[in-house]
Amino acid sequence: MLDPRNDAASFPEIDAYGLHRMMDEVSSFGGGADGALTRLTLSEEDRKARDWLVARLRKSGLRVEIDPIGNIFGFLDWAGEDAPRIMTGSHLDSQPNGGRFDGSYGVVAACAAVEAIQRRVAATGLKPKANLVVVNWTNEEGARFQPSLLGSGVNAGELEIDFALARRDGDGVSVGEALARIGYAGTAAPVVPDALIELHIEGSDKLEKAGLRFAAFTRFWGAVKYRLAFIGRQAHTGPTPMAERRDALLAAALLIVALKGLADQAGLDLHTSVGRLEVHPNSPNVVPGEAVLFIELRSAKPEILAWAEDQLKRTMAACAEATQTDFEVRSIDRRKAGNLDTRLVSLAETTAACFGQATMHLDTIGGHDAIAMSAVTPAIVISVPSVGGVIHHPTEFTTPEDRLLGTEILAAMLWQFCERGNILEG
Amino acid sequence: MLDPRNDAASFPEIDAYGLHRMMDEVSSFGGGADGALTRLTLSEEDRKARDWLVARLRKSGLRVEIDPIGNIFGFLDWAGEDAPRIMTGSHLDSQPNGGRFDGSYGVVAACAAVEAIQRRVAATGLKPKANLVVVNWTNEEGARFQPSLLGSGVNAGELEIDFALARRDGDGVSVGEALARIGYAGTAAPVVPDALIELHIEGSDKLEKAGLRFAAFTRFWGAVKYRLAFIGRQAHTGPTPMAERRDALLAAALLIVALKGLADQAGLDLHTSVGRLEVHPNSPNVVPGEAVLFIELRSAKPEILAWAEDQLKRTMAACAEATQTDFEVRSIDRRKAGNLDTRLVSLAETTAACFGQATMHLDTIGGHDAIAMSAVTPAIVISVPSVGGVIHHPTEFTTPEDRLLGTEILAAMLWQFCERGNILEG
Repeated sequence: MLDPRNDAASFPEIDAYGLHRMMDEVSSFGGGADGALTRLTLSEEDRKARDWLVARLRKSGLRVEIDPIGNIFGFLDWAGEDAPRIMTGSHLDSQPNGGRFDGSYGVVAACAAVEAIQRRVAATGLKPKANLVVVNWTNEEGARFQPSLLGSGVNAGELEIDFALARRDGDGVSVGEALARIGYAGTAAPVVPDALIELHIEGSDKLEKAGLRFAAFTRFWGAVKYRLAFIGRQAHTGPTPMAERRDALLAAALLIVALKGLADQAGLDLHTSVGRLEVHPNSPNVVPGEAVLFIELRSAKPEILAWAEDQLKRTMAACAEATQTDFEVRSIDRRKAGNLDTRLVSLAETTAACFGQATMHLDTIGGHDAIAMSAVTPAIVISVPSVGGVIHHPTEFTTPEDRLLGTEILAAMLWQFCERGNILEG
Repeated sequence: MLDPRNDAASFPEIDAYGLHRMMDEVSSFGGGADGALTRLTLSEEDRKARDWLVARLRKSGLRVEIDPIGNIFGFLDWAGEDAPRIMTGSHLDSQPNGGRFDGSYGVVAACAAVEAIQRRVAATGLKPKANLVVVNWTNEEGARFQPSLLGSGVNAGELEIDFALARRDGDGVSVGEALARIGYAGTAAPVVPDALIELHIEGSDKLEKAGLRFAAFTRFWGAVKYRLAFIGRQAHTGPTPMAERRDALLAAALLIVALKGLADQAGLDLHTSVGRLEVHPNSPNVVPGEAVLFIELRSAKPEILAWAEDQLKRTMAACAEATQTDFEVRSIDRRKAGNLDTRLVSLAETTAACFGQATMHLDTIGGHDAIAMSAVTPAIVISVPSVGGVIHHPTEFTTPEDRLLGTEILAAMLWQFCERGNILEG
C-alpha cells in the first residue's frame, strides 16, 4: 500500500524545535516540581491547557468545535465533503501527580504533524485527498470522574451523554457542572472519522528491552472485574478455637494466593490482581467478619478469560468452604478483548520502515480512547518508548529523539491519506 | 484443706433475688435494646455504674477508697490488721455494643457474696479470720484506652501510673482527664491482697459442650503480637507484567495462609490470627505498594510460642522473597504464659464439689485482671457457663441459675478464709 519510492525525506518535515516547545508550553498547565503533572479533567489547569490548544488549532487555520461532553475537535476540511476524514489526537488530562507525556504528547504531536502537512501542502501545491481532525478527548484518565474514556465513549455512542454528564467527582461536582464552569460544554455532533491514529507513550518497557523505538498496539485485552465479599463471623482472636473460626480475611488470603496461581498457570496471557481489599471490622483482636476483594482478570484471549473466570468461580467456592465462610458476588464488570485495525497496523509498519524502524507489535492492557473509538471506526494506537516503562508517575519520560520519531511517523501516515485518499480501501 | 463436714448448706446463703436485682440495676447504666451494653471505661455511663457500686459498698458498711487510676476498693477490715486480706471483684466497663455479664457479673457477685458472708457472721457470731476487699478495676476492656488491664496493671506495678494516665482515646482525651471529669481520680495506695478470686463468665462454650456448670482457669496463654509491613511497588494492575510486580498484598496473603498452617501444624496449642490488615493505596487498579498486618500468636506453652515466632520470622522472609517485596517489623508485643495459683484451683474444686459440681480446668486465652494481679499475689479466675459461648456481643448471656451457682461457690471460697484465716498457707 506504501509507495516504495517513499523514504523519510519524502514525508512532511516536523519542526522539532516547535514540537518540543509545544510540549514545554502545555506542561506548564498543572506542572509541578520534578516533572510532576496534575491536570485533572475539567479542572482550571485543564481549562488553561484547552484554551492553549484551541488557540493553537485556530492559529493553524483549523475550525474548532466542542461537543456536549467537552471533546475538542480541530477540523481541517481542505479536501471537500466527500473526502475521507482522518482523526488524530489523544487527551490533555492527567492523573494526580502523574507525568507530562501520557496523553499530552499525542495531542501535541497531532498539532505538530498537521502543521507539517500543511507546510508540505503549501510548498508542493498538492491537492489533499483527505480531511484531517485533531482531537482532545475529555476524561481519558478516569481519575476525577469514573468511568475513564468518558469523552471517547460518548463520541463512539458507547456511553449515554446524560449518564456521562451526571458523573460526580469526590466533591460532588458533576461533569456537566464542571464543563459549564470552565466553558467547555459545546453542541457539536459526534465525529466518526474514516480512520483514527492515536500516538501515545508506550507505558511499559518492552520497546526499551527489545532495543526498539516504535510499536503498534495490535490487540487490546479484555477484562473481567469482580467485587467479591467473604462473610465470616466476628469473634475474639484469643479464646475462639481455631476450628470454630469463620475468618473472612483468611478466605480472602486463600483467594489472592490462588488468583496468582492462575496467572502462573496461564503464563503471559493472563494478568490477575486484587488491588483493593476491605476488611471488617479490621480490629487487631477480632477475627474478621467480612472481607471484600476487588478482583481483576485481564487477557487478550477470550478463551483464557473465560477459563480464568470459571476458575475464579470454583476458587471462591473452595475458599469459602475451606474457611466455613459464605461468599457473595457484589458486582461483575466485563470489557471484551479485541484487535486494532490490521490495515492501520500494516500502514504503521511500512511507514516506520521508511524511517529505518522495525515495528514491535504490542498488546494494550489498559484503556485508550482509540479503543473506545475502534467500535465505530478503524483505529490504531502507535507508540514510542517510555524510559524505564514508567507511567502515571512524575518520572515518566520519553526522549526528545523518540518524541520526534513518533511525530514523524504519525505525520507520514496521515500524509499518505492526504496524498492518496482512503488508502485503507485501496 | 476443706473441712469434709462442709456441704452447701454450711456456707453463706446468697440472696438470689438480690443478686439478680443488682444485675438488672447495674445493667441500666449504658444498657440498650436486646441486651446490648455500651459502658466504655470512664464514660458517663461508667460514672453512674461506679456511683451505684460505691453506694452499695457503703450501704454494706465497707470503706471505699479510690486509687489514682480510678480502681474502686471496698474494704471490710473486720479481722484486724494482721489478718490476711482476700480480694474479689472484676470490672464494670464494657466493649461498645457488648454484653451485660462480662465483668459486671463478677462485681455484682462479689457484692452479693460479701453481703451473704456478713449475714452469716452476724447470725453465727463468728470472729472472722480474714479481711475482705471488693474491687472494680478501671479499663479492663481496652476498648476506649489501650492497653487493656490498665487498672489492675497499675495496681500490680506492671504499668507506671504516669504512662497509664497519659493514654488517650480516639478523641484525644487522656485517662487522667477522663478520671478527673467523672470524679474518680483518687489517692489510695496499691492494694496487694493475700489472695484474689475473680468470678467471670466463661466466654467460650467448653462448659456447655461438656455439660458442666463450673470451671477454674488454671493457665493463661502467652501472646506474641507483631505489626508487620510488606513493602512492594505501586503499579498499574493492567499493563504491569506479572513477573515484574512487587505486590505487597500478595505477600500479606501468603503470610496469612502460612500462619493458619502453623496453627494447623501445632494443633490445639496455638492460636494464630491477623485481625487487621492495612492496604496502601487500596485502589482497585493499583498493585498494592504496602500491606501492614497485625499478627497474633497465642499459646499456653512457651516452647510452642517460641517455635511459632521462629516460624513466623522464616515465613515473613519467605513471603517477601516470593513476591519481590521487602518487609519491616514495626512493633513486637509479648505477654508471657503462666499458671494461676494451684492451691486456689484446689480450693475451687473442693468447694464446687460441696455444691455437687465437677470443676472443669480451662485455659484463659484473653486477658483478665486476675492475670495481671497474679504477678504479685495468688490469684484465680473461676467461671460459670456463657450460653453458646458468646462474649462481647449483646446476646451474651449466663442463666440466673448459673449466676447464683457461681456466686455461691465464690462466697463459700471466701467463707473458708473468714473461718480459718489464710488457708493457702495451711
